[in-house]
Amino acid sequence: MKNTFGQSVAVTVFGESHGEAIGAVIDGLAPGVDVDLDFINKQLSKRRPQGKTDTPRVEKDNFQILSGVFNGKTTGTPICIVIPNENTNSKSYNKELLRPSHADYTANEKYHSYQDYRGGGHFSGRVTAALVAAGAIAIKALEKLNIKIGTHILKCNTVCDRAFENMDEDINALMEKTFPVLSDCEEQMTAVIQNARENLDSVGGVLQTAIVGMPTGVGEPWFDSVESIISHAMFSIGGVKGIEFGQGFNFANMLGSQANDQFEIKNGKIVTKTNNNGGINGGITNGMPILFNLAVKPTPSIAKAQNTVNIDTMENTTIEIKGRHDPAIIRRACVVVDSVCALTVCDLLAGRYGTDVFTKGIN
Amino acid sequence: MKNTFGQSVAVTVFGESHGEAIGAVIDGLAPGVDVDLDFINKQLSKRRPQGKTDTPRVEKDNFQILSGVFNGKTTGTPICIVIPNENTNSKSYNKELLRPSHADYTANEKYHSYQDYRGGGHFSGRVTAALVAAGAIAIKALEKLNIKIGTHILKCNTVCDRAFENMDEDINALMEKTFPVLSDCEEQMTAVIQNARENLDSVGGVLQTAIVGMPTGVGEPWFDSVESIISHAMFSIGGVKGIEFGQGFNFANMLGSQANDQFEIKNGKIVTKTNNNGGINGGITNGMPILFNLAVKPTPSIAKAQNTVNIDTMENTTIEIKGRHDPAIIRRACVVVDSVCALTVCDLLAGRYGTDVFTKGIN
Amino acid sequence: MKNTFGQSVAVTVFGESHGEAIGAVIDGLAPGVDVDLDFINKQLSKRRPQGKTDTPRVEKDNFQILSGVFNGKTTGTPICIVIPNENTNSKSYNKELLRPSHADYTANEKYHSYQDYRGGGHFSGRVTAALVAAGAIAIKALEKLNIKIGTHILKCNTVCDRAFENMDEDINALMEKTFPVLSDCEEQMTAVIQNARENLDSVGGVLQTAIVGMPTGVGEPWFDSVESIISHAMFSIGGVKGIEFGQGFNFANMLGSQANDQFEIKNGKIVTKTNNNGGINGGITNGMPILFNLAVKPTPSIAKAQNTVNIDTMENTTIEIKGRHDPAIIRRACVVVDSVCALTVCDLLAGRYGTDVFTKGIN
Amino acid sequence: MKNTFGQSVAVTVFGESHGEAIGAVIDGLAPGVDVDLDFINKQLSKRRPQGKTDTPRVEKDNFQILSGVFNGKTTGTPICIVIPNENTNSKSYNKELLRPSHADYTANEKYHSYQDYRGGGHFSGRVTAALVAAGAIAIKALEKLNIKIGTHILKCNTVCDRAFENMDEDINALMEKTFPVLSDCEEQMTAVIQNARENLDSVGGVLQTAIVGMPTGVGEPWFDSVESIISHAMFSIGGVKGIEFGQGFNFANMLGSQANDQFEIKNGKIVTKTNNNGGINGGITNGMPILFNLAVKPTPSIAKAQNTVNIDTMENTTIEIKGRHDPAIIRRACVVVDSVCALTVCDLLAGRYGTDVFTKGIN
Repeated sequence: MKNTFGQSVAVTVFGESHGEAIGAVIDGLAPGVDVDLDFINKQLSKRRPQGKTDTPRVEKDNFQILSGVFNGKTTGTPICIVIPNENTNSKSYNKELLRPSHADYTANEKYHSYQDYRGGGHFSGRVTAALVAAGAIAIKALEKLNIKIGTHILKCNTVCDRAFENMDEDINALMEKTFPVLSDCEEQMTAVIQNARENLDSVGGVLQTAIVGMPTGVGEPWFDSVESIISHAMFSIGGVKGIEFGQGFNFANMLGSQANDQFEIKNGKIVTKTNNNGGINGGITNGMPILFNLAVKPTPSIAKAQNTVNIDTMENTTIEIKGRHDPAIIRRACVVVDSVCALTVCDLLAGRYGTDVFTKGIN
Repeated sequence: MKNTFGQSVAVTVFGESHGEAIGAVIDGLAPGVDVDLDFINKQLSKRRPQGKTDTPRVEKDNFQILSGVFNGKTTGTPICIVIPNENTNSKSYNKELLRPSHADYTANEKYHSYQDYRGGGHFSGRVTAALVAAGAIAIKALEKLNIKIGTHILKCNTVCDRAFENMDEDINALMEKTFPVLSDCEEQMTAVIQNARENLDSVGGVLQTAIVGMPTGVGEPWFDSVESIISHAMFSIGGVKGIEFGQGFNFANMLGSQANDQFEIKNGKIVTKTNNNGGINGGITNGMPILFNLAVKPTPSIAKAQNTVNIDTMENTTIEIKGRHDPAIIRRACVVVDSVCALTVCDLLAGRYGTDVFTKGIN
Repeated sequence: MKNTFGQSVAVTVFGESHGEAIGAVIDGLAPGVDVDLDFINKQLSKRRPQGKTDTPRVEKDNFQILSGVFNGKTTGTPICIVIPNENTNSKSYNKELLRPSHADYTANEKYHSYQDYRGGGHFSGRVTAALVAAGAIAIKALEKLNIKIGTHILKCNTVCDRAFENMDEDINALMEKTFPVLSDCEEQMTAVIQNARENLDSVGGVLQTAIVGMPTGVGEPWFDSVESIISHAMFSIGGVKGIEFGQGFNFANMLGSQANDQFEIKNGKIVTKTNNNGGINGGITNGMPILFNLAVKPTPSIAKAQNTVNIDTMENTTIEIKGRHDPAIIRRACVVVDSVCALTVCDLLAGRYGTDVFTKGIN
Repeated sequence: MKNTFGQSVAVTVFGESHGEAIGAVIDGLAPGVDVDLDFINKQLSKRRPQGKTDTPRVEKDNFQILSGVFNGKTTGTPICIVIPNENTNSKSYNKELLRPSHADYTANEKYHSYQDYRGGGHFSGRVTAALVAAGAIAIKALEKLNIKIGTHILKCNTVCDRAFENMDEDINALMEKTFPVLSDCEEQMTAVIQNARENLDSVGGVLQTAIVGMPTGVGEPWFDSVESIISHAMFSIGGVKGIEFGQGFNFANMLGSQANDQFEIKNGKIVTKTNNNGGINGGITNGMPILFNLAVKPTPSIAKAQNTVNIDTMENTTIEIKGRHDPAIIRRACVVVDSVCALTVCDLLAGRYGTDVFTKGIN
């Protein structure tokens, strides 16, 4: 389905970086969900570039909701959100020089050179603004069901944040932060990023996400495991190149007796003593927090000279990417991950409990 | 779609570990593809337990093709493959004791205790036999298009294999191996696994997969990136808890100038000097080998005593899992990964080039 | 999705008329639904040929449930039903002579002559036996929700049955009939069919279906209207060439003031005084019975000489179809329509109310 | 998938009659397809009300293409078309009085009274303007493949047009007509419609559609027959209550020997002597024109007094629908049918021949 994700709650994205507008259509969200414009703006502001670590291209993100909202609530019909592109500057883009590790070459192969190449076109991170606006509605819908999502920068090159500890507190704290970290490492991370920029270079990192409040019994044994669904969604965010649930790749170092999450009864409910599996057994939620890490590669746009190919002349050459770019996208990516995650969880819940789950609740 | 995966070429699985049979239906594979029964048997034998490192439950895997094959070739209609369960022994299963890190608890929550709990039921690795049989047909279909897939055990607890080097050679070598490793580490890995078994414990590991010969321009920018599609498929294999493409989590340690895959012209074609991105840029294939690693957790069935809950009495208790189990599934998982991967690639190709791609070729 | 229908409750069919077996996989039906083997047999017997009006090929329909049922109830995992082909006789089929109005030519064009041509292969009405077995489980699941479905022969060539009157009574009566008509017209219809056979010819007709007990508010305004979903399902039954809801084509003769279904309150509930719209407004159920008619064309297999083409020699020639054929399929089609309809309604309900609707009920 | 239709080429609609805008997103159309703005306007003008037979609400349909088009051609990424609502007047709508045979009641049941009820909201025929704009791009893409689509009013209450005869000529003629009929019956039909309006009433009719130039071998035997796909799409157009392919309901009056389309060789190609099956055998195209008729019910909005219910007070009452309404939608519906049909055919072709079919051609 290409640019659409989700079965019961589906989101479709459209738009190019330097076209008229980017946007998203959310379909299947129950009627009667509050649409909080201030919250949408707050979420968009988290994604917006800041002076220190991000691109100088700042868009105002004057989003417009064209449909699906009436008297401040969702109607149950498709919600189209459009965000015009206002601060575009296409001069710095040369179509013929392929930017290494960008989608220039693959887009050319897929779209036979008809793609809008300006600013990465449809591949641009700009499109994630629409996902953040859409996700803001989903986050609020989940709050009503006591489901919360938070993402922080676990690692920025050599600098590490602490892992999640007290989930609820940590997520609440992250909700208010522009630079989403749990420990006192913002300054160090910022320094690493600025240092990269000064060296005409870029850095990547690892993000950690927690979803708390998920009911048990959601997901499928084969093909639509919760891991399958979440990873599918996450790998559509540009720059994400790895995902691991719970102990993930660290499982390879553990014995079964260390890895297994043993059960116990606590307050009359079945819980696990540890959460190495990140809240998912056999592809299905077990009621513990869902935990996953994402590997984000360094931003491919760097000012350093790189070898490349001129696709028009088919000659080897070099490129120095000037334009306006982020030396790291890990900060801005956190709110995008939260947003896509929220839309994904809405889809899982609507599939299991029916379309009215967001107003009637889980039962 | 629950137990179905794929849009243009779709596979549906069914069956329980101790039921009548397990099986798969493949739909959308072009007519005219050779169905090589010997090769299906060869692939099934790779998945079958061996004395040293695996479960003592050995099934003969007497598969039957009920439909979709005529005169030794696919007809283009759904292929149903059924494999009867012959060597079942349900005595060792107690429904009420939840096996830690298994799907017992989550299955109970999802299916409200109506699930067939014997031997893990529909969650059992037994179902992967059907995927291997189905995948064998897909692997042969891809061979005609010069696309090859290989998986080896990159890491078994503390023992490491070398990474892929000469792709074609390595994949050809793996095709003939029962214990799929590239370097001389079988003995060490086997020792680690046997040692775990002796200690009533189990081990996990990391698998590495390569797909060579993929055409450029396959995949989608949003939501149906090649990473999204492959990860979706891989996370339906039990025990897989992480996936990374190319450098994956190692990207966090790299600068953009180190991470980017610079372009050059080689033999008149555009290639990248490195392949840190694992053959995928912007979600779309760039013609380089697709490379990914999978984290596989230790088998949860261990004979050591573990804390758990009796779900009938809702009391804390302990469990020692006797039955017939694998102290590691990483060896047997390799052919499953190849098979699921082959079905996934068939789906990607049929979506891009049309349903006749397997007989008409890519153009 | 080719041979799969449904999103929340999906059914996949496989098999060829003269292959090993035909079958179906139902996925997404809630756990805990009773599986009544006697009822499945009863439904299959309605579809089975009878001496007077049908083909002499009689299959015993010894169905086997391979998965998804445990202790007499659904487990919630895929249910695979297989029905072996026992009474096959492939001698009468000549691949090279295209049978007019059959799928011989189109199958050849689609499958490039790799199709199993014997007895119509995958296009054969034989495959509907699997749908009837699957549908029998769905019909019983709907009964628990007080939803009932019935189909009768409204018209067999020149002979007409009366339309539905007292829905519940009529449907209950049809459930027990082998020749499903509401008025005293069986003898006349049988005579018409036998007459056609004697003249080496065949007849078609019109079927009428009613679904009672549907909750209000099911369906979608665009693309997934209840009419869209039902018609999609019905046109996969061979021989169906038309569908109309409520007054259907007769609407063209009516004025708005005659056609509109005016509202009134009855027993505290909103109902319509008439039901010209067949229970659907704006694509969504209004709580009145869903009513539709299906046009079924005369069976294309006739013994009369017809002009055709020899596809091997590409010459004009004639064909007389001997084999064992039905001079009319309208009687046998009724239970197939009920079955496909029941599966479709299950899908609609699970999508709206969640996967547990069949055990938890609609609320 | 609710408001999305199609798998390989998918269209999503959004918008409410009296909201900001209505629109559509087309995804999966190949890159490099010409986008002819004048043709889009021409098609929109056919849908626009005319003085004599239609509603006085005239919208300028100032459509905007926000994405997916670059330098006058499709890029291959999603095309979002937005049409603002400019001439809205919500005064005449009373939410509490249910308009008979409209979606007022069913929308209320589905959306729990959160729907935008003004002017029918998301159920309004206004949304079809977006489908016409999207369809115009699809029609031009099909023209390059020599596939043409035409729809005419076969019957307006008592007045009948002639059926299609010379397909190509007829379709070309229809393309230029605002009142799409093949014979000299415009005046009579117009009189019938105006007469209905004067009597505060409305009329319906039957439309006939032809698709010529379809390749053979498109469609699926089960569930995704060409009839299934087309009917699914057509029943999402408001007011459509019946569809029949070829002889449709008339098949009930025919014998097999009359109904069957006998084969012959003509100009070296296999064709049928008649086309009673409307170009489809076994769910798959046979290369003959696809022919179908649609039953369209009388517009439910009539000024005559009707019985209804006040849903707020739950009392019986009467309603006279004033507002601005069409006494018949059959004229305006023709271009909508063509548009939806073109999008559907694009989806069928992209699924069979791959995503590049629109620029590379069918082979």
